[in-house]
Amino acid sequence: MSKKKCSFSKPSLAWPTVQRLSEYLLILEHYINTGNEVISSSELADIYGNTASQVRQDIFRLQNTGRMGHGYSVKTLVNTIRRTLGLETGTNVIIVGCGKLGSAIAEHVPFNSYGMSLKGIFDKDPDIIGNRVSGLKVENVQFLTKAIKNRAVSLAALCVTHSSAQEVADMLVSAKIRGILNYTRKHLKVPSCVIVQDLQIICSFIQLAYVCGN
Amino acid sequence: MSKKKCSFSKPSLAWPTVQRLSEYLLILEHYINTGNEVISSSELADIYGNTASQVRQDIFRLQNTGRMGHGYSVKTLVNTIRRTLGLETGTNVIIVGCGKLGSAIAEHVPFNSYGMSLKGIFDKDPDIIGNRVSGLKVENVQFLTKAIKNRAVSLAALCVTHSSAQEVADMLVSAKIRGILNYTRKHLKVPSCVIVQDLQIICSFIQLAYVCGN
Repeated sequence: MSKKKCSFSKPSLAWPTVQRLSEYLLILEHYINTGNEVISSSELADIYGNTASQVRQDIFRLQNTGRMGHGYSVKTLVNTIRRTLGLETGTNVIIVGCGKLGSAIAEHVPFNSYGMSLKGIFDKDPDIIGNRVSGLKVENVQFLTKAIKNRAVSLAALCVTHSSAQEVADMLVSAKIRGILNYTRKHLKVPSCVIVQDLQIICSFIQLAYVCGN
Repeated sequence: MSKKKCSFSKPSLAWPTVQRLSEYLLILEHYINTGNEVISSSELADIYGNTASQVRQDIFRLQNTGRMGHGYSVKTLVNTIRRTLGLETGTNVIIVGCGKLGSAIAEHVPFNSYGMSLKGIFDKDPDIIGNRVSGLKVENVQFLTKAIKNRAVSLAALCVTHSSAQEVADMLVSAKIRGILNYTRKHLKVPSCVIVQDLQIICSFIQLAYVCGN
């Protein structure tokens, strides 16, 4: 999951910390559902797969850690991570490319639960345009630029074919998108003010194959 | 992307190193296609989004780095990372759940290019069983356990519904699967000898929304 540097954004947390905190958040939200009210750094580290020391360092960066005795209040930690990651600010998202992957993301990703709003799904295929996916009508990609501006969209998930990827990325850039989740295998050329996160699914298979020691 | 600890596996590289090396590999393979034969640590760091010092530390762990002058031979580095990550060993993979996400993974992930082989796709829906996806016939999930054993499958991508996830994970465990890429939102309970990598798509959106400084 590579990313380009961005000149406009000055987030206070480093990228690896953001990655871990977002993953802790999902773990803790599951943990809270099981009825557990307190978690220790070593318990969280055990679930996540890192060390208690790393967990403590990460949590130390938060303003209200919910520390109590030998652990942390799960509820407080969840709320603090959510606030720290800005999940209350409301990020508008679109999906470009409504094939299997694009529509799977539209239907299964719980944007609303994390302060995000899916503002549009676009495709160039006349057979797909007009279909209803996740409560939205798939729109013609030719209206992409206008939609990004009018709907204050910050993030786009790029799920088009390899051959269309750069062309669509250029449209996103011209519409002043801030971030692109790139699910294609194309390495995108974008200006430094646009952050690209490459999400090649094969990467996770490579990593797990190594760790499983095949 | 959390993972559980595993007792049977003793990989020599730490998990974050494996993550970075696999991501470097995909970047370098793109880079080689552009006709560039040499890359410096700072060029790679710039594309990846980390520091030249971190890149050098990671490459230092490899046996043949292809170091030449002020950079590295991209071709040598690609081959060395592939060998280090064991991409020539041939890992057998299956996909369980052939909805939109499962079939998107089957069709778009280039398993063969990374020493992996997709050995089966399973579902419980009679309307889906028997369909051809990515050259394979979707099989009934009731044959899952037998297929894992007979086809020496190490990794499974779990793309079923939230409500079926634990039940299918139990079947995978009983068939002695070594690793599960968990695309469901369910936090799986598995013995410590099975490695689970949680791949909740929302995580990448959360991370990018923060970095974009919305």
